Amino acid sequence: MKINVMQDVLQANDRIAGENRQLFKKNRNLVLNLMSSPGAGKTSLLEKTAEKLTGKLRLGVVVGDIETTRDADRIAKYHVPAIQLTTGTACHLDANMVASALPHLALDKIDVLVVENVGNLVCPAEFIVGEDFKIMILSVTEGDEKPLKYPLMFRESALMLINKVDLLQYTNFNLEEAKSNARKINPAIDIIEISCTKGTGLDKWIGWLNARYQKKLGDLTNA
Amino acid sequence: MKINVMQDVLQANDRIAGENRQLFKKNRNLVLNLMSSPGAGKTSLLEKTAEKLTGKLRLGVVVGDIETTRDADRIAKYHVPAIQLTTGTACHLDANMVASALPHLALDKIDVLVVENVGNLVCPAEFIVGEDFKIMILSVTEGDEKPLKYPLMFRESALMLINKVDLLQYTNFNLEEAKSNARKINPAIDIIEISCTKGTGLDKWIGWLNARYQKKLGDLTNA
Repeated sequence: MKINVMQDVLQANDRIAGENRQLFKKNRNLVLNLMSSPGAGKTSLLEKTAEKLTGKLRLGVVVGDIETTRDADRIAKYHVPAIQLTTGTACHLDANMVASALPHLALDKIDVLVVENVGNLVCPAEFIVGEDFKIMILSVTEGDEKPLKYPLMFRESALMLINKVDLLQYTNFNLEEAKSNARKINPAIDIIEISCTKGTGLDKWIGWLNARYQKKLGDLTNA
Repeated sequence: MKINVMQDVLQANDRIAGENRQLFKKNRNLVLNLMSSPGAGKTSLLEKTAEKLTGKLRLGVVVGDIETTRDADRIAKYHVPAIQLTTGTACHLDANMVASALPHLALDKIDVLVVENVGNLVCPAEFIVGEDFKIMILSVTEGDEKPLKYPLMFRESALMLINKVDLLQYTNFNLEEAKSNARKINPAIDIIEISCTKGTGLDKWIGWLNARYQKKLGDLTNA
């Protein structure tokens, strides 16, 4: 019975995610569902992304947090439309929560919409919100064994950004071990090493983002 | 209806937690429910604690992880009885999961039982497992605003250990801000700064633990 309740929840979620997806298609938005542990650097990545995309692609953000509007405030400083969803006790965003934010965004003036999920390496991976891709950040201070301990998130993600590589020398994090562990779970996962504070790898990340956006535009044109 | 389902789940959980608590009382165990984000240092703390308690108090551990038995293996090296619970998709431990581990532990030969929860700053705080205290680790690489963004965990915890203080100089983490934010949420919270890799603050932590254990023995004797 417990399982049935969860199945119903997921079916309802998938239906609403499908509606979100139609809306994104109509507005030609590339949509990314960004996930990580608390403090791995999701908002810092979005700040840097906003800087780098200025004059190139138009960014929009939906931010989920249990409480506070700090993250949306940080992003709004970059003149990026940002909607904060405070989830109360929910430890992840679902399709319906994201749907509730969409009327407040001018989707036709956005190229790339990033949904910054609640900081949590578990539950967010279970819910689609209408995204083209799930992507995730693993920070080097968290440990290189995390892909084995939280496999669903790594399995669902198209891209793993390894953040805070400037701190590598102060930790026992082994980069090759982390990559190998992630690929055991998901052989197709893309991996980019970055440091949001030092700027390392950010152009590579922007390149990844841009390629996915151009591909989506092409697919929509050919469809 | 969604709320009722959750109420039922929590009521059943509280009943089983009460049964666990009776068992712990009979065996004179101090029980701590240890929570944090992934990679904040729960297992490292338990390794150091095992070292420090040798010949003083007898430690036992129940470890929850989505997958793998790595953490229990790490702790077992210190000749501490450690039971690994792999939770599959569950993002937290509940009282029933912990109950399932207890027949595998000689509780009458344990003084302090630590339940190392799944790495998650959200859901674990919602479920009691029969513990005397919830305690938590915040690592300096996560950010000093976390108490405001994940308030329930900080509200429920008797003690916040601030770990990885050896990395403070490489981050923009403000210790006083973190403490002030935690006390806004929970004025009574105890706070100890530690570094598991450098050994900083560990004697203070052992002192906290020992005081709680002696207090519990006293309460049981006087009851």
